Formats: sequence, C-alpha cells, structure tokens
Amino acid sequence: MRSNISFLPLSRQHCKWIRKLHQKKYRRKEKLFIAEGLNSFHAAVKTPHHTISEIIVDHDFADKVRDNPSLFPLSPEIPVYECSRDEMESLSSEETPQGIVIVCHQKEFLVNETTTGKMSDPLIYCEETSDPGNLGIIIRSSAWFGFNRILIGPFCVDPFNTKVIRSSAGTIFGVEVYQSIHRDVIIELADRAGYTLIAAVPAGGIPLHQCEKSEKNIIMFGHESKGLSRHLAERADRRISIPGCGTVESLNLSVAASIILYEFAVQLGRF
Amino acid sequence: MRSNISFLPLSRQHCKWIRKLHQKKYRRKEKLFIAEGLNSFHAAVKTPHHTISEIIVDHDFADKVRDNPSLFPLSPEIPVYECSRDEMESLSSEETPQGIVIVCHQKEFLVNETTTGKMSDPLIYCEETSDPGNLGIIIRSSAWFGFNRILIGPFCVDPFNTKVIRSSAGTIFGVEVYQSIHRDVIIELADRAGYTLIAAVPAGGIPLHQCEKSEKNIIMFGHESKGLSRHLAERADRRISIPGCGTVESLNLSVAASIILYEFAVQLGRF
Repeated sequence: MRSNISFLPLSRQHCKWIRKLHQKKYRRKEKLFIAEGLNSFHAAVKTPHHTISEIIVDHDFADKVRDNPSLFPLSPEIPVYECSRDEMESLSSEETPQGIVIVCHQKEFLVNETTTGKMSDPLIYCEETSDPGNLGIIIRSSAWFGFNRILIGPFCVDPFNTKVIRSSAGTIFGVEVYQSIHRDVIIELADRAGYTLIAAVPAGGIPLHQCEKSEKNIIMFGHESKGLSRHLAERADRRISIPGCGTVESLNLSVAASIILYEFAVQLGRF
Repeated sequence: MRSNISFLPLSRQHCKWIRKLHQKKYRRKEKLFIAEGLNSFHAAVKTPHHTISEIIVDHDFADKVRDNPSLFPLSPEIPVYECSRDEMESLSSEETPQGIVIVCHQKEFLVNETTTGKMSDPLIYCEETSDPGNLGIIIRSSAWFGFNRILIGPFCVDPFNTKVIRSSAGTIFGVEVYQSIHRDVIIELADRAGYTLIAAVPAGGIPLHQCEKSEKNIIMFGHESKGLSRHLAERADRRISIPGCGTVESLNLSVAASIILYEFAVQLGRF
C-alpha cells in the first residue's frame, strides 16, 4: 500500500515565513506556532486545542510515510509540504532534527471558562516564569498529574516559544494555558469563585506535607529568582514551602512546582 | 580599606588552557573543572570537596573587590588572575558572564566510603543520565533534601560538565558524586552492605506514596528515554512509579527523581 498523501513542494518564501515563527512577534501576529517531532504530531491530532495548520517533512521522512502510510494518519485538509534536509535544519531548533515540523493554530483560552472545571482541580498560576524550559516542564508535570489549566502572568515567557513546546514534550496540546493573566485577575477570581489562594514560597511557609487540604485552590508560583510579588504572597490565604535540609538556597522552580503538584494530587486522593 | 589581594595578569596561553577545561578530555587529564559566579565561589569555599585551584575575574569584578574586599574572603594561597571583558566572555559559558570563573580540583570519591553514612540516608544511583541539565538538577534536589551521596554509571554525562555545574546551582560542591560506578558494583554493594535496591520506573511500579519504608536504600534512576537497564530493573527489590493521570507518557527525569527524593525525605521523618 502506498500513501495517498500528496506532498507539496515548499517554496523558499514559504520556508522563510515558517522560520519567522521562532520569533514571538510573528507568532503573535499570525496566531500560530511551531512544534517538532512525531510525538508532537500525535499529541496535536489527539486533542482539540491548537489544531494543525500545516506540516513540513523532509525527503527522508516523506519516503518513510510513502512506505508506511499508517505512520501518519492525517485528515486530507491539512497540507503537507516536503523539503530538503538543509531546509529542515533551517526550520528546526533541534540539534538533530526529527524530519517533521508542524505549524499549529494558537487557541486562546479565556479566564471566565476556568470556573467551570471540577471543584477539586486546582488552578495553577505562574506569575512570572522566565525560563522556557521551566514553563515547559511545569506544563508537562501538570498534565501528568491531570491538572489541565495553567494561568500565566503578562511577564511570563511565551508558552508557544519553541523551547517551551519542546520541554513540554507534547503536553502543550492537552493543557489549557491562559495567557497574560494579571495578578489582580487572580485575586478577583479567588474572591468571586471561592478559590483558596496558595502561595509557593522558598522558605517560611507551612511545610508542604503538613498543609491542610482545601477544596478549590489556585496554587501560585513566582519568578525563578525574585519569587512571587509581595502583593500576591501577602494576599495568599496560605503560604507553603517544600522542607529542605537548610544548607541549599533553593530548588529549581519547575522541580518545586512539580513536587507541589504531586503532593496535591496525592492529598486530593487522585490515585 | 583597600583589598590586599594581588591580581595577577592572565597570559593568552593561560587563558587558552582554562578554556580547554570546557572539554571533558582536558578536565579528565588535569583533574580540574570550571565553575562560574559568586554563588559557586561561596559554595566552593564553604565545603571541603573540590578545592579552588585558581580564580579569574574581569576588570569590573576586580574593581568591585578593590572597593569592597569583604566580597571576596580568600586565602592568600589561591592565585587570582585579572582579565579583560572579552577574555572573560571567551572563558564563560553563560550568555551574561558574571565576571568570575573559578577553577577547582576534582575530588574523587571511592565507593567503599559510601557504606559509612547514616543508615537512613538513601544512596542515589543514576545509571545513565545523559542530559547535563538533568544531572545538575538531581544533584541540586539531592542536596536540598540532605541526601549527599550520588553514584553515577560509566555512561552518565560528566558531572564536571559546565552545564551540570550550572544547573546544580553550586550544590556540586556539597554533594559526593561517585563516578563510573557500574551496575554490578551497585548490586554487589547492596548484597554486601544490606541495601534495598529500589528501581524508579515510569509505570507499573508500586505507587510512590504507598511504597513501604525500608532502612537502607539505593534509589536507582535510568536513562531519559531508555529507562533503567533490564538487568537492574529485574534485580531491584522494589519497583516504584509516580502515579499520573495516564494521558501523558512520562515526567522529566530530574522532576521524577526530585519527587521521589521528596517522598523519601518525608517518609524518613526528616522534617
């Protein structure tokens, strides 16, 4: 059996346009983003958010699909472009490109929708995560523990940054990321919808494993070095910290967030 | 008060020699490594492992020290070299160099010593961590939870790799990293010294929060994508997994390791 996908030629102009999506301003303008690899493709196909706009594969990848079409279960409306290895390397941000890049529509989530989830699902608020690797890992861990709604502040790194997408390991497609949410919106949301505001602080909070369970939570994480704004840390109903041995300054932000999500998942009896 | 540190000039030859320490073969040959930033300097001064061989600062940093010598409490035996901003940029692996690089002696740890620790301290074994960021974060989290002995396999990334040092956030200086430990040595150590071998596996193990406590443990982590070797996974006394919601393939390795170390620290009543 041969594939019935028709591979379109990729023009230089088109290639150049896709490459621009590595820059935030073009992603914003086009409301698109780039993801790489077959795992991202499968994740994008499986979930309703961020639908695929087009796919680019290199000759080797196209040959594999021609030999084994089941690799690539694809709706015929999505155009697939074929390019050279050199062009793929210019499109990819990976050291060893996997031969497939997908361009996806950015779905926008509105904060009003966040009150409609399950009562026991905590919301996660990243006030100002600056490192793309950290935001990607927080998205990945949230997805692992089944917490699928993350709100991020206006000064957070762009969640559609290529490094965020990569370190999210495909989970960006299953998690609702609400962008540019100012801390005042978080406070207003907590007041209006009865969320308990929980501030993750490096030290001095209630030890995580002793923290009392509550029903509806917004767990708030701050900047890698500056932490949470004083405004949020003071307004929080509860401050929690991961206990440590005291000789080390801090944990990595994405590690700390993941440990907290694990403890919440266990305490909520999720497993 | 003016500093009494004498800043030596840095020759081109010397600068070139230091730059070579970014390569593993030269680190191995010289038994030295590079760390960057004032935090690394303070960490190196505070702990007995990996003593400082020499320090290089740029003109700006040297001026700051001349104005405020307390920044830089230093034994007079350690030579301090002063260089230009351009030279510092050639020595540094950071996008924004902090103006100080330290060259340290690699202390070698021998596995026989690992049996002398506290009974309740688990040993950590990284069979084949390939990503330097992951190994650095595992070292940082181990230090946070007070587990100060990590054994790594012969195919692990070099723990003195500049990226490992950076993501360890200075904690490399307080943690004993035992290198090139083959899995057979781990099994032999467990048999001889009565350790329980615990294999961290992505799925199918005992849920972490339900895992029975034991006294002396070696917690074993595998490769980022291949996991633990079958040999170790089958020989383990217990296999543990972090429960998840099932829709995501895996957690990041350093995140998974950190969550497991957190749970062990809590269960051992460390806090």
